[in-house]
Amino acid sequence: MVNLMKNRSKKAGLPPGTLVHIGEKKTETVAITVFHYDETHCEEREVSAAEGALHIPSASTVTWINIGGLHKLDLIDAIGRQFQLHPLLVEDIVNTDQRPKLDDYQGYLYVVLKMLYPERGHEEIKVEQVSLILGPHVVLSFQENGSDVFEPVRDRIRHGKGRIRQAGADYLLYSLVDAIVDHYFVVLETLGEKVEVLQDAVIRNPKPETLQGVHVLKRELLFVRRSIWPLREVISGLQRADSSMVSETTKVYFSDVYDHTIQAIDTLETLREMVSGMLEIYLSSISQRTNAVIKVLTIIATIFMPLTFIAGVYGMNFEYMPELRWRAGYPMVLVGMAVVVAVMLLFFRKKKWI
Amino acid sequence: MVNLMKNRSKKAGLPPGTLVHIGEKKTETVAITVFHYDETHCEEREVSAAEGALHIPSASTVTWINIGGLHKLDLIDAIGRQFQLHPLLVEDIVNTDQRPKLDDYQGYLYVVLKMLYPERGHEEIKVEQVSLILGPHVVLSFQENGSDVFEPVRDRIRHGKGRIRQAGADYLLYSLVDAIVDHYFVVLETLGEKVEVLQDAVIRNPKPETLQGVHVLKRELLFVRRSIWPLREVISGLQRADSSMVSETTKVYFSDVYDHTIQAIDTLETLREMVSGMLEIYLSSISQRTNAVIKVLTIIATIFMPLTFIAGVYGMNFEYMPELRWRAGYPMVLVGMAVVVAVMLLFFRKKKWI
Amino acid sequence: MVNLMKNRSKKAGLPPGTLVHIGEKKTETVAITVFHYDETHCEEREVSAAEGALHIPSASTVTWINIGGLHKLDLIDAIGRQFQLHPLLVEDIVNTDQRPKLDDYQGYLYVVLKMLYPERGHEEIKVEQVSLILGPHVVLSFQENGSDVFEPVRDRIRHGKGRIRQAGADYLLYSLVDAIVDHYFVVLETLGEKVEVLQDAVIRNPKPETLQGVHVLKRELLFVRRSIWPLREVISGLQRADSSMVSETTKVYFSDVYDHTIQAIDTLETLREMVSGMLEIYLSSISQRTNAVIKVLTIIATIFMPLTFIAGVYGMNFEYMPELRWRAGYPMVLVGMAVVVAVMLLFFRKKKWI
Amino acid sequence: MVNLMKNRSKKAGLPPGTLVHIGEKKTETVAITVFHYDETHCEEREVSAAEGALHIPSASTVTWINIGGLHKLDLIDAIGRQFQLHPLLVEDIVNTDQRPKLDDYQGYLYVVLKMLYPERGHEEIKVEQVSLILGPHVVLSFQENGSDVFEPVRDRIRHGKGRIRQAGADYLLYSLVDAIVDHYFVVLETLGEKVEVLQDAVIRNPKPETLQGVHVLKRELLFVRRSIWPLREVISGLQRADSSMVSETTKVYFSDVYDHTIQAIDTLETLREMVSGMLEIYLSSISQRTNAVIKVLTIIATIFMPLTFIAGVYGMNFEYMPELRWRAGYPMVLVGMAVVVAVMLLFFRKKKWI
Amino acid sequence: MVNLMKNRSKKAGLPPGTLVHIGEKKTETVAITVFHYDETHCEEREVSAAEGALHIPSASTVTWINIGGLHKLDLIDAIGRQFQLHPLLVEDIVNTDQRPKLDDYQGYLYVVLKMLYPERGHEEIKVEQVSLILGPHVVLSFQENGSDVFEPVRDRIRHGKGRIRQAGADYLLYSLVDAIVDHYFVVLETLGEKVEVLQDAVIRNPKPETLQGVHVLKRELLFVRRSIWPLREVISGLQRADSSMVSETTKVYFSDVYDHTIQAIDTLETLREMVSGMLEIYLSSISQRTNAVIKVLTIIATIFMPLTFIAGVYGMNFEYMPELRWRAGYPMVLVGMAVVVAVMLLFFRKKKWI
Repeated sequence: MVNLMKNRSKKAGLPPGTLVHIGEKKTETVAITVFHYDETHCEEREVSAAEGALHIPSASTVTWINIGGLHKLDLIDAIGRQFQLHPLLVEDIVNTDQRPKLDDYQGYLYVVLKMLYPERGHEEIKVEQVSLILGPHVVLSFQENGSDVFEPVRDRIRHGKGRIRQAGADYLLYSLVDAIVDHYFVVLETLGEKVEVLQDAVIRNPKPETLQGVHVLKRELLFVRRSIWPLREVISGLQRADSSMVSETTKVYFSDVYDHTIQAIDTLETLREMVSGMLEIYLSSISQRTNAVIKVLTIIATIFMPLTFIAGVYGMNFEYMPELRWRAGYPMVLVGMAVVVAVMLLFFRKKKWI
Repeated sequence: MVNLMKNRSKKAGLPPGTLVHIGEKKTETVAITVFHYDETHCEEREVSAAEGALHIPSASTVTWINIGGLHKLDLIDAIGRQFQLHPLLVEDIVNTDQRPKLDDYQGYLYVVLKMLYPERGHEEIKVEQVSLILGPHVVLSFQENGSDVFEPVRDRIRHGKGRIRQAGADYLLYSLVDAIVDHYFVVLETLGEKVEVLQDAVIRNPKPETLQGVHVLKRELLFVRRSIWPLREVISGLQRADSSMVSETTKVYFSDVYDHTIQAIDTLETLREMVSGMLEIYLSSISQRTNAVIKVLTIIATIFMPLTFIAGVYGMNFEYMPELRWRAGYPMVLVGMAVVVAVMLLFFRKKKWI
Repeated sequence: MVNLMKNRSKKAGLPPGTLVHIGEKKTETVAITVFHYDETHCEEREVSAAEGALHIPSASTVTWINIGGLHKLDLIDAIGRQFQLHPLLVEDIVNTDQRPKLDDYQGYLYVVLKMLYPERGHEEIKVEQVSLILGPHVVLSFQENGSDVFEPVRDRIRHGKGRIRQAGADYLLYSLVDAIVDHYFVVLETLGEKVEVLQDAVIRNPKPETLQGVHVLKRELLFVRRSIWPLREVISGLQRADSSMVSETTKVYFSDVYDHTIQAIDTLETLREMVSGMLEIYLSSISQRTNAVIKVLTIIATIFMPLTFIAGVYGMNFEYMPELRWRAGYPMVLVGMAVVVAVMLLFFRKKKWI
Repeated sequence: MVNLMKNRSKKAGLPPGTLVHIGEKKTETVAITVFHYDETHCEEREVSAAEGALHIPSASTVTWINIGGLHKLDLIDAIGRQFQLHPLLVEDIVNTDQRPKLDDYQGYLYVVLKMLYPERGHEEIKVEQVSLILGPHVVLSFQENGSDVFEPVRDRIRHGKGRIRQAGADYLLYSLVDAIVDHYFVVLETLGEKVEVLQDAVIRNPKPETLQGVHVLKRELLFVRRSIWPLREVISGLQRADSSMVSETTKVYFSDVYDHTIQAIDTLETLREMVSGMLEIYLSSISQRTNAVIKVLTIIATIFMPLTFIAGVYGMNFEYMPELRWRAGYPMVLVGMAVVVAVMLLFFRKKKWI
Repeated sequence: MVNLMKNRSKKAGLPPGTLVHIGEKKTETVAITVFHYDETHCEEREVSAAEGALHIPSASTVTWINIGGLHKLDLIDAIGRQFQLHPLLVEDIVNTDQRPKLDDYQGYLYVVLKMLYPERGHEEIKVEQVSLILGPHVVLSFQENGSDVFEPVRDRIRHGKGRIRQAGADYLLYSLVDAIVDHYFVVLETLGEKVEVLQDAVIRNPKPETLQGVHVLKRELLFVRRSIWPLREVISGLQRADSSMVSETTKVYFSDVYDHTIQAIDTLETLREMVSGMLEIYLSSISQRTNAVIKVLTIIATIFMPLTFIAGVYGMNFEYMPELRWRAGYPMVLVGMAVVVAVMLLFFRKKKWI
């Protein structure tokens, strides 16, 4: 089951700006990839030692530094100092329990997003925090582990597909955000299929496991919702951002991502509404079934109780029971019983129970 | 059952502006119809080859180009390039999974709407995406297939009915939007009738199929809602639009469409509220019925159990049971049983069960 | 049952401004009443032929033209042309499926209201659309049939009661709106009484008919709500209206009507909340009753099943059953049965079932 | 039970400004109390004849005129004319069915409040309308009957406690509003206790009377809500009022009352949420109990039905039933029955029913 | 169980500014701690006698006076007079039934917060009101008892950790607010665990105690909500505060606390949503179980009633029952019974009951 809270409380009492890695360690080594590119050139490097390798980016090229892995606090700290990031910002990078948000610091924008992906082989939705920092001519991206959601973007840079190589760092930021938002639809489709399956089960064959399934799904949707909802504000913030950071041309692209986000939220809310109706349907189905079971019971009881009673009467041991001596007594009683059954069946038919 | 999600995820990872047709191919050939008209003349042409035929529209006439069918991506692309449409806009045209929206690009307005119609012979609501582009003296309309919802507008142009031939391209845009919104009422009336029928069934004769019917209807309403709700914003956007695009005279007409949209939303919400109450009523009806069934069971059991017990007592084989030898034993027992039945019936009458 | 939708769809496809009468024809003849009055004089006329009789109103008197009946489209059209009303406005007058609204056309205000009244002899709420047009020194009012809700206003004009004869056309508009809003309270009181009666029935004696009653009432409230809610906006619009149309003095009066509207909405929402809780109470009552019935069943079964079993044991035909030969066998069994009954009754008493 | 609507409809059709007393007559005589005070002097008078006694207040002292009783319309009318109150305002004073509101007339503020108090000896909440008018150097207060909620204020004036004698008429208005709002907490505490008691009853011992209690309480809260909610707007209106009416110093005090109002609303909403959850809990409790009852029934039936069947088999009268002749037949059957009982009990234990 | 209302009503009727301690007395003695610090020095003192010891703070150092215990009204009053606090503010300090709020008095800011902590050894959440006053170079903090939530802040001041010694009084205010907000996560995690445990119990093993647990938890969450929700407004108020009180540098820190508050609210709402779904799940589980129980009953009854009937028939004492004389009678009846059982079992299998 999705865990809704991380062990956030271990930070209580620490002075602000203290780096504490909240979240699980998802990768062993920290992978740093650096891209330098402009319209004509593109250089890609894997960097291991942090500080020396990260020279200041130049104004003529766009630099993208991707850090995969957050548990080496001194490395994060060093990068923070090199790019003169605010201590609170650096603190937020390693605290993976953030809500998606946009912070506008003097000279750079800080975007926190949640990447969602269905875990391979499992049924669960996994979440990973992605921090993006847009500075002049540079984008820093921090992932919990170096998952491959950014691979298509890397590919476009490498091969100069689309207009990414012509555009600036703001367009790179857009491309990264877009890659993450596009991924939400994969997750939503997975969830949508689960909803379909459950809905069928709830109406056709309600079982305790179905109930548990509804419950788990409801929780997953709640979880996804917390990751996607705040995004709307984040992206509309980017659209309103100071134009020295994000150019007018790129804002058109952010407005496209905004549409996608709204669409994702829309789909999510539809799914939520469908799931929230399921419990009601489940309850109705169970009631319907109980009703059907009780009808069977009542029919059986109503038919056999009078019959058993009649048989009981003629099983009494009174000495003076004239019927017992009649030759036709037994067949008459049998016929009488048949009449009782027939009357009962007619009664049930009239009540539309059978 | 209405399908809530299209296979939107296949776009994940592609650079923005890449044309991918999302949605089913609803027509084989792509039909292009071109209208040129002013107050005195009206020219109508079917165009097959795309690029050559679409000469630039002149300022003295209004040009309306209707494209029916979205799957020929190169054709759409060519039209996009000819009218200098933004790549993201062209991408949205062929992605039929859009929300209704209004985008204001430099020099033209882009409106996405959803056309709804009950599928002939079936009970389902079908949806089709319509993209409308308003440029200077020109309106482009893109339909998934060339359905006949715009036929009345064509007619009015051909025969100069109303003020359409006197007015500009903005009035043509209005006429197209109005035609679509007017069509919503047809759909809403169909749904309204379904609601009436179901509501009757839920109260009078609740069955599992009724439950499923409620469920399907709820989903359809959810579906229609997603198509109609965002329209309000779209149309109020058109009312606020730059007056060089939409003239003041035409804005009065858009305010009329706005009223209609509000009315459609109002009706929709009323229907939704009625359907959402149905599950509760269903549950209440089932409970009521279960109660009635259990009453029957209890009455039967309460009458026959004591009787059977009495019969059982006198069926015991004790040697010394004086009553068995009494001449009046049998009739006395029968009378005693009758008294028990009478007492029980009085008890039930007092409880108002019978 | 209240019908929620009119046959609105028959307008689909017609050019805007086409007059189509939507709604039922509620009166045979169209009655036109004209008032001319100032502080000292008052002239009242019944007019039959339309155009000639409606001379242009003069600036020194207030003219009120009331048209009762909307189905004579050419008459409405003629009036529209005479007073230079916008074609869309005239179209709205005859379309009785409007939402209450305020439209501000150049030179006149257009107000659509819904008049509600409980139909005599029936239990239903009826609705009638009233269109009011305020021009300089003139008020036009259009009713579906000439119902008598405006009679008190006519009376005040005729006899110069209150300040109506001193004031201008805007005050007349206020008086008409006020008359309609005051009438809502009559309807709300009728509904309030129904709510009281049903609430009692739901708690004391829940039956399937009660459920249906709740359902019908819920629908009526939904219906009334659609008529009253938009009024708030309409009247606050009138308060903000251009002061050349509505004078400051009259705005104080509109603010009074606004208070009444809020109060009506308040009452309506309270009624709705009460009705929406009724289904829950109904369900609880049914459950409670089912519980009571099942208790009876269980008590009966729990007492008589062991007894019948004991009797059954001594009804077995084994040759070697020593108890059967005992002299005290029969009384001992009877005592044993009494003990079983006593134990069971104690058990039920402890469980507080009896 | 609290009555939700007063007979408001009897006003329909009357011209605005007509005085009609809506509400019950709560006191026989009308008591008028007049205070004149400044920092050094304080004069208190009971006034019986209206007009002569109410001389115009002077600018150097604060005058407070309290009128207890609203049914003498000519008296109210006379006061209205003397202080030049707007006819609509005077109409509102005697119509006790007002919503709390603040009206800003030229030269004076008109505040309508609802005073709540639990009726002595009864369980019900009573409501009384209080109208307060703030003019220059004067406060008029109208109560339905001269209840003692203002007594502490009078006391403070008489003995010069607090800063009331130093401050102006606006501070007196504040003191009166504060006295009323403070009283709400008494009512809310009474309601809070009822909620506690009911909540206990619903979980521990749900009975039909509990259901009715929940229902009555829900209604009372709805009723209190209508009195308190609009107050928020009223008081924030007073805080924004023209500073010639309410001084900056006094606004700080109004902001304190505002806090109290929010707190009262907060408490009220909490109570409402608790009550609205009770029906669900009630339903759950009933279901739980039904479940327990049915378990008892099933256990009894499942144990005794097989036993009775076995006894029945050996009660058959076949001539050739070898077991009947066995010496050990009877004890063997008894042992067999005991085994059946043991198996059943094990089965129920495994199912955790016992 | 958490008590939702304090005895607030005892204040009714008192003049504003009267000090009444509302809440329980949580500590015996009142502990006053004073810090004076700047970048280089730090002085910490325990103060017992109030007035003399609290000399006016100087502009070059930051002074923090912490008062633990609110029941000595004369002490609070003396401090209020010394720092020239508004009487209403002082009144609010000792009234522990406040909502969190921010009041901006001339020259100082007044912040009311709620501190939450799980009571040691008990399961309950305790709440304590904390009043913070920010003046020039001084922070006053009032706690109900001197609980140790501020200990980490004291520690940072003592040892000069972080930037607290370099910064001004506004940063100290931030540190105190942050300490309180950080503590919320501890409480939320405790509650989160309770939710998990209950959710499990509700699905797996619904019992009346579970229902009560859900109920208590719901109430606790309601309680926590009232403490946390208003905080959002308070902190965004601090962010907007006059920059002479709160410097721009510190506002960045407040925006960090704001994020934490939103996160806490988010988590709280998620928990509330989960709990509010539990009652539905509980009801569904109970229904499911009742259904299962009734199935067992029906199966048993349906199998044994016909058998007992057959046995009853052959237990009748008619003289002429040919079957009784048949040699194969008894075995044939036994076989017939077996057939009945088999048919019934097949029927149940087909219905998927077993």
